[in-house]
Amino acid sequence: MHHLQQFFKDELPVINDYLGRETRQLPELVRPVAEHVLRAGGKRLRPLLTILFSRCFSAGKKSPDPLPASRDIYPLACAMEFLHSATLLHDDILDGSDLRRGQTTAHLIFGRTETILAGDVLLALGNRLVAEYGDTRLSWRVADAIMRTASGEIQELEWIKNPTLSQEHYLEIITGKTAYLIQASCHCGALVSNSGPAVEQAALDFGINLGIAFQLTDDALDYSAKAEVAGKPVGNDLREGKLTLPLISYLESIAEHQRHETLAWIRDLGATSDHGVLSDQNRARHDQIIQAVRSTGCVQQTLDRAAHFVSLADNALSNLEQTRECTALREALHHTLHREK
Amino acid sequence: MHHLQQFFKDELPVINDYLGRETRQLPELVRPVAEHVLRAGGKRLRPLLTILFSRCFSAGKKSPDPLPASRDIYPLACAMEFLHSATLLHDDILDGSDLRRGQTTAHLIFGRTETILAGDVLLALGNRLVAEYGDTRLSWRVADAIMRTASGEIQELEWIKNPTLSQEHYLEIITGKTAYLIQASCHCGALVSNSGPAVEQAALDFGINLGIAFQLTDDALDYSAKAEVAGKPVGNDLREGKLTLPLISYLESIAEHQRHETLAWIRDLGATSDHGVLSDQNRARHDQIIQAVRSTGCVQQTLDRAAHFVSLADNALSNLEQTRECTALREALHHTLHREK
Repeated sequence: MHHLQQFFKDELPVINDYLGRETRQLPELVRPVAEHVLRAGGKRLRPLLTILFSRCFSAGKKSPDPLPASRDIYPLACAMEFLHSATLLHDDILDGSDLRRGQTTAHLIFGRTETILAGDVLLALGNRLVAEYGDTRLSWRVADAIMRTASGEIQELEWIKNPTLSQEHYLEIITGKTAYLIQASCHCGALVSNSGPAVEQAALDFGINLGIAFQLTDDALDYSAKAEVAGKPVGNDLREGKLTLPLISYLESIAEHQRHETLAWIRDLGATSDHGVLSDQNRARHDQIIQAVRSTGCVQQTLDRAAHFVSLADNALSNLEQTRECTALREALHHTLHREK
Repeated sequence: MHHLQQFFKDELPVINDYLGRETRQLPELVRPVAEHVLRAGGKRLRPLLTILFSRCFSAGKKSPDPLPASRDIYPLACAMEFLHSATLLHDDILDGSDLRRGQTTAHLIFGRTETILAGDVLLALGNRLVAEYGDTRLSWRVADAIMRTASGEIQELEWIKNPTLSQEHYLEIITGKTAYLIQASCHCGALVSNSGPAVEQAALDFGINLGIAFQLTDDALDYSAKAEVAGKPVGNDLREGKLTLPLISYLESIAEHQRHETLAWIRDLGATSDHGVLSDQNRARHDQIIQAVRSTGCVQQTLDRAAHFVSLADNALSNLEQTRECTALREALHHTLHREK
């Protein structure tokens, strides 16, 4: 993790500085909402991917073409974080979530109105920062990714109302709601540095597969004993009535009558859950399902699936010159798969 | 109104056809929401402005450069309607509005979740349609206008909480929430046809002044006896506790103690109004204020102010060749000022 850690150490202060400066210029009503979601936001994965890909180049080439001075990478990288934060703000309202990364969600602190508007402003700010590069390949990529992200959210909501056990449908949903914006973060880095079709293709393939692996790992951690030991609350998806891969695999493994009964109970739980507080009876059933998902190996199956997408992402880097940046991207893959919370 | 009517007759079916085709491709969960807001949307002012400005040219020039075949104007024009519709969907949630143009608002029919997401999808669709022109002047203009529109909404919400009597502040708010997107609709038409700096400047000046005049007229109509006769419900702004120019002018004209008392009552009404249903006592006071705003000439003062901005918009057209399109733009100004609902 040496290279990735070094990049974090070097880039994080610059990224956070830029995010802070732009946020301070927002209208007063939405500024605290934006600051709250950005503070809760953690690792700045998306900006870092944009920066790393802007410095990658094809194997055999001596060095990347330097960005023209007018093309400072940070506004573009930070636009990705603003767009991501905007989707989080709206999602938490839609899901009725109380917590995000252990913090109370923005709409409960600042109100729904302020949170919807803060999301709209951050979306527009992200689009404007991207448009300022004067390169419509970037604007188009971002608009398309946001549209696919919203469509993924929509599919997920439809699915919650009427869940089926299709693993394909599940993959389609997580690709939409998570992977396209991660892909766009990578691709925009490659586009802005004009590093040519090989790097662009690598960015597209790496980004989509990392995005899927990222969400699969997240969904596995929500059932994982290791995560529980590391202090991460588990069972959130189950309590919201969300079917994710560990649960789908488990349900596929049991007898039909038991499956129907369990599905009906989950649907009921999702519809009646009062801010995640369970009755004693529901709590016992909930804990029992989590144990069953673990003991039937369905958490590990999900992680194996994530490992498959990580290896696809890894392969995507093979045509790049194996620089420090490229190594850091590989380390990010490793980190995605092996994190404990 | 001959030219404007002809343009409406020719262009409206093409615009509506395009809007319908794009809408039918939206995800199932949000499609009915988009169809609802577009159906309620009326006159397609913004797309028409884009189309008209794309065909304007500087005085003395023989004709506009034709758009290249790849630059069909309709996706751009319709993007403006999608963006406008997106802001309406989110606004109605923020305002808690029950009605828009006499129709039940989307969030009451389809639910808040579906309406927020439909707004997000329409915003992203509008941005993507614009990005497909491969001209970042367009993407930047649209992102900036959306950001200013959201900022105007925010300022309005802050103002409702703590209203002052500043006419300047009021003008700033309506410029933000209404005029910038109308300006962008005009400017994008001029930009996409590469008609040069004179037409661009005309589009910017015409758009912003028409936008302000449009909102001023709207605010006047909400107190107008003529509108009431024409079947438009009046007093909506008052019932929501919104201070608009007719009321500001009226409050400035009365004695200080009376002003304080009336302001306190309005603030209270805005905070307690239950879906616009008033108690008998509040109803009497409400009717009394509307009558007072009318009889002190404050509706007419607001219309005079609108006429001032209409004349600025009219002047902006003086450097253009006086074609049918230019005449239609003037007729749109006349119509804005003299409509009765």
